[in-house]
Amino acid sequence: MTVYEKLQELKIELPVPTAPVAAFVPTVRTGNLLFVSGHIAKREGTSWAGQLGSDISVDEGRKAARNAAVDLLATLHHELGSLAHVKRIVKLLCFVNSAPQFTDQHLVANGASELLQDVFGKDGVHARSAVGVAQLPLGSCVEIEVVAEVA
Amino acid sequence: MTVYEKLQELKIELPVPTAPVAAFVPTVRTGNLLFVSGHIAKREGTSWAGQLGSDISVDEGRKAARNAAVDLLATLHHELGSLAHVKRIVKLLCFVNSAPQFTDQHLVANGASELLQDVFGKDGVHARSAVGVAQLPLGSCVEIEVVAEVA
Amino acid sequence: MTVYEKLQELKIELPVPTAPVAAFVPTVRTGNLLFVSGHIAKREGTSWAGQLGSDISVDEGRKAARNAAVDLLATLHHELGSLAHVKRIVKLLCFVNSAPQFTDQHLVANGASELLQDVFGKDGVHARSAVGVAQLPLGSCVEIEVVAEVA
Repeated sequence: MTVYEKLQELKIELPVPTAPVAAFVPTVRTGNLLFVSGHIAKREGTSWAGQLGSDISVDEGRKAARNAAVDLLATLHHELGSLAHVKRIVKLLCFVNSAPQFTDQHLVANGASELLQDVFGKDGVHARSAVGVAQLPLGSCVEIEVVAEVA
Repeated sequence: MTVYEKLQELKIELPVPTAPVAAFVPTVRTGNLLFVSGHIAKREGTSWAGQLGSDISVDEGRKAARNAAVDLLATLHHELGSLAHVKRIVKLLCFVNSAPQFTDQHLVANGASELLQDVFGKDGVHARSAVGVAQLPLGSCVEIEVVAEVA
Repeated sequence: MTVYEKLQELKIELPVPTAPVAAFVPTVRTGNLLFVSGHIAKREGTSWAGQLGSDISVDEGRKAARNAAVDLLATLHHELGSLAHVKRIVKLLCFVNSAPQFTDQHLVANGASELLQDVFGKDGVHARSAVGVAQLPLGSCVEIEVVAEVA
């Protein structure tokens, strides 16, 4: 099954990526590594604002992280021409907008990690860090960046 | 126009980098990648302390991020011998010292991103993440690390 | 003196790494780079919970960062077969669980940086960032990720 057939099975339609609203680009390739800019979680095209441990539940946070991962896939598809050029998702860094007492950042990040594994299989399994930050751009509840190995 | 002519045009004088005050080094090269340590924003040689959304305005934050980027350039110049060895600024990670309600981390980070683009042109355009953290070393309002491709 | 003799001299026994409790893996190799997942600080096998500037002192934080570094070494040993395959610790990113007024993240991170230098000598000296985050998984006071060059 190709990555695109898998996306279809999961009923995931890749959005058209929006250009960064600031002075940077979505990805930069160096050798076989592709560094992908942080993607905030969105819902219906705008920032999914809120804070874990406050007004966003763990389950919502997981969905937000999954949404960010879908947008990361859309960016990879758009930048590389095809997701078939992704050889491995190497590293994921998940920033979770966290109230002082919230300690389940890893469960939130799983929403992104599991999607990448579902889509790419063993090539989607990555090294990862998940941390709780004080705030994120546009008040988003999650921001995710990745490093990928590409062909 | 060379990078150094561009710096002169921008009236930027690269400072002499100060050695890290802890058990690490400013940069490590592996293959063609140079990993550059986090640089806190400084003003008149000492930490530019404060928090966005509290006692530092967005405009001050942009200037602080720009200052950190100037110090990053000074480190690159000192470590590589010449900024001409920088082939590409690949990735920038900007940590913004943020009060709970501050959500303009991307605008602060632009202060660094725009300087790098001004100095290096298209080779200065990078992938980026900007996040809001609870605090930073020496109370600095901004800390920035980069990955560069070097020759 | 080999790395293992050095560990013995420091009376450090590498623990058996615990598998990640989430949908990711401890390390991913791409080319000669090994990206190592964030390791939270543990004490007696469980999360060393707490916050710097609140219920964890700088000295305790240093020890926690050192513990996380020992666990990183255990992961490197387990994944590579031998620490002799580590050519260089390239980059370390230290997230310190920080109360609003705590500004000594760099001193906490030294606990990890100094251990890596003690064990690997000049090959253990790395580029580094240290930042203060709002919270961490399982309430841990420190989380550390590294990038290593391997043979």
